[in-house]
Amino acid sequence: MHKPLKVGLCGLGTVGSGTFNVLKRNAREIERRAGRPIVVEHVGARRNNPACDTGDVRVSRDIFDVARDPEVDVVVELIGGNTVARELVLEAIAHGKHVVTANKALLAEQGDEIFRAAAEKGVIVAYEAAVAGGIPIIKALREGLSANRIEWLGGIINGTGNFILTHMRDEGRSFEDVLAEAQALGYAEADPTFDVEGIDAAHKLTLLASAAFGIPLQFERVYTEGISRLTQEDITQAGRMGYVIKHLGIARQTDKGIELRVHPTLVPASQLLASVSGALNAVEVMGDAVGPTLYYGAGAGGEETASAVIADLIDVSRDMAMPAEYRTPYLGFNAPADGESVPVVLPMDEVVCSYYLRLVVEDRPGVLAAITAILAENAISIESMLQCDCSEGANRVNIILLTHEASEAHMNAAIERLEALDDVVHPANRIRVEHFGQARH
Amino acid sequence: MHKPLKVGLCGLGTVGSGTFNVLKRNAREIERRAGRPIVVEHVGARRNNPACDTGDVRVSRDIFDVARDPEVDVVVELIGGNTVARELVLEAIAHGKHVVTANKALLAEQGDEIFRAAAEKGVIVAYEAAVAGGIPIIKALREGLSANRIEWLGGIINGTGNFILTHMRDEGRSFEDVLAEAQALGYAEADPTFDVEGIDAAHKLTLLASAAFGIPLQFERVYTEGISRLTQEDITQAGRMGYVIKHLGIARQTDKGIELRVHPTLVPASQLLASVSGALNAVEVMGDAVGPTLYYGAGAGGEETASAVIADLIDVSRDMAMPAEYRTPYLGFNAPADGESVPVVLPMDEVVCSYYLRLVVEDRPGVLAAITAILAENAISIESMLQCDCSEGANRVNIILLTHEASEAHMNAAIERLEALDDVVHPANRIRVEHFGQARH
Repeated sequence: MHKPLKVGLCGLGTVGSGTFNVLKRNAREIERRAGRPIVVEHVGARRNNPACDTGDVRVSRDIFDVARDPEVDVVVELIGGNTVARELVLEAIAHGKHVVTANKALLAEQGDEIFRAAAEKGVIVAYEAAVAGGIPIIKALREGLSANRIEWLGGIINGTGNFILTHMRDEGRSFEDVLAEAQALGYAEADPTFDVEGIDAAHKLTLLASAAFGIPLQFERVYTEGISRLTQEDITQAGRMGYVIKHLGIARQTDKGIELRVHPTLVPASQLLASVSGALNAVEVMGDAVGPTLYYGAGAGGEETASAVIADLIDVSRDMAMPAEYRTPYLGFNAPADGESVPVVLPMDEVVCSYYLRLVVEDRPGVLAAITAILAENAISIESMLQCDCSEGANRVNIILLTHEASEAHMNAAIERLEALDDVVHPANRIRVEHFGQARH
Repeated sequence: MHKPLKVGLCGLGTVGSGTFNVLKRNAREIERRAGRPIVVEHVGARRNNPACDTGDVRVSRDIFDVARDPEVDVVVELIGGNTVARELVLEAIAHGKHVVTANKALLAEQGDEIFRAAAEKGVIVAYEAAVAGGIPIIKALREGLSANRIEWLGGIINGTGNFILTHMRDEGRSFEDVLAEAQALGYAEADPTFDVEGIDAAHKLTLLASAAFGIPLQFERVYTEGISRLTQEDITQAGRMGYVIKHLGIARQTDKGIELRVHPTLVPASQLLASVSGALNAVEVMGDAVGPTLYYGAGAGGEETASAVIADLIDVSRDMAMPAEYRTPYLGFNAPADGESVPVVLPMDEVVCSYYLRLVVEDRPGVLAAITAILAENAISIESMLQCDCSEGANRVNIILLTHEASEAHMNAAIERLEALDDVVHPANRIRVEHFGQARH
């Protein structure tokens, strides 16, 4: 019997109390798996949480006391944000503690500094809980799929957004209406910006892309577009054409570089990703050897996220017994050799994909000819088109186009000209389309 | 830079040549992940395979030469079966080699002997490729979900069977017809017994259940029923009621013991598992903390399975640097403490589930009364019933029942009496129903 792994747990919110409770409830099961007990030695939290009974565990109001406690082997950071959390993690590392965190913002934006400090001290920083909650997707990318050259990944990695889109589609309701319900249910924050504008998804995509492609963390280069301007009309029209609109994080390796983008996306209804409903998450990954694989489950929630936190603790209990240079690198890859190039992130202008375009136009002769001429002049070819009534007035119609693949630069140029036409009465509604499919490239 | 990990590759069939080729093609990527090159040092194969160019790698016709080669760090066993493969694995272990294998039959039936020998020598035996091909489901169970008490898992873990059922459903064809096509395409063996009678799935379920619940390997206690007697009529009727028939391996922890069973199963069409088509595999796992998670991908194929073999090799390259007692136990759990009980496998008679029952009856007054009386006398209550035409003759009709939960013992007793009725002209068609769902117990 090895001696217990002693945990310093910072933060007693939903995930913190979930972690505390699952460690207690499943203590024997966890011990049989880890080969040693995993015990909470010290809790750091500004206030207690009635959802968990800390009993006779030491509780400090100053979380830094936990980072400095000589009895603690590993600090679990569940306070969130990237100011105090950054200091806490760096302080824990400075004291030679291993770190487990669920903090995607901190790692996506300041991971370089943190991993560098951890490498210098030879300690582990584990972060399975930072991406897609309880789904072991970081482990899948760093270890399970490690034989593959990853071609692309696409994921529903924000539960709030998927909850809103699912209810908009199933119930025909507006974005604002469902958002208000999500806020009432606790699925969305009072300020929903991080979730609905795609910032949270971009944080997670940053981590996924580094673990998939061996590139540096580059949050600032993720193209990010939210779901707050999506209309019921687009959801309905997409449905008619056999598509479901999902808010996806997409990373793809191309010959010219890595695409990194978060935006609403038309996905064929026949695909598994399109069937992922409610607050659930899923990530599909294409490897050159394994083909497509998909990982599905809860992307948030107290015990759901605690599942990943504790799996990391069990990994730490093993890997700390291994010389640091043999451990899986923080982001899955060792540094490139001298002079070895790693792929760059492709500017959004150079991304190539298919598009859904909905234009509200005055129903006059010649308008369609003008539209198709502009598309042709920008090298955009049309896969299908339909014209149908629109809710915006008697003399107006929807023109809905699906295009073949075109570059963002061309599409942006075309849209600018389309919006300048007298008969196009609205800003164009442009949504990107992905046909991930089962087929290899 | 650490020294290369030297691999002895035994077997150059589909998976063996896939492993050889992926190791070569992705050598640099794998080296950046593992922190050292992974090289094939010695191949053992009775004949070469034109699908891979072994170049100047040493090739022996006697695979035991590989197991004894002092240059080899890890032996990859891809010859299959459990006679020569068993000897090879034991010989490799006796020579202090780590082992990676894709051999489900060997481990499910003789894993105890193999893991015991490996433990004595302090070597690793890794087997991700043995279950669900390229899907990292063993890693998910042993590591990713290690915080959870697993409540149940259900999986499509035989690609041949799922290919057949998918085509029967989509194209209205018979079992025999689709099987012949699967054989022509190479998806099914000339003797398809292992796949279509559920033996292969039972091997995999044995491994999954041990990794999920910490119970010994008990292949001989898996209830196993194949798909060869499934009719188009049942597939169609199930579809009308909103179900898809899948051949599932199911393991569930109940208060009385562990259910272990492989059989055709009605799954609600709305569930993700129901959408898994063709030769693909998926496993859904319910953990008490994380809730349901699902893992989807290729369950067979050369490079697809090689993906798992090589991921295991990369793990071996790390874990061999760790004292053996810190490594993840072979089946995920350390031995129970003295006097600690582990759950027993529940006899099939005690399994409780819902049923679909299709009876072909003579269309005479009183037959329905006789049927419902027998069910009532066996404590089986009916959730819904429908009567419809049947293809078996003008005076015959189908009576289709969905029952509430009942025990196998009760259902078997009822079926015996139903089949003895004069007006029931056929053996009863009984298919079990699962509503996995998202809800917790």
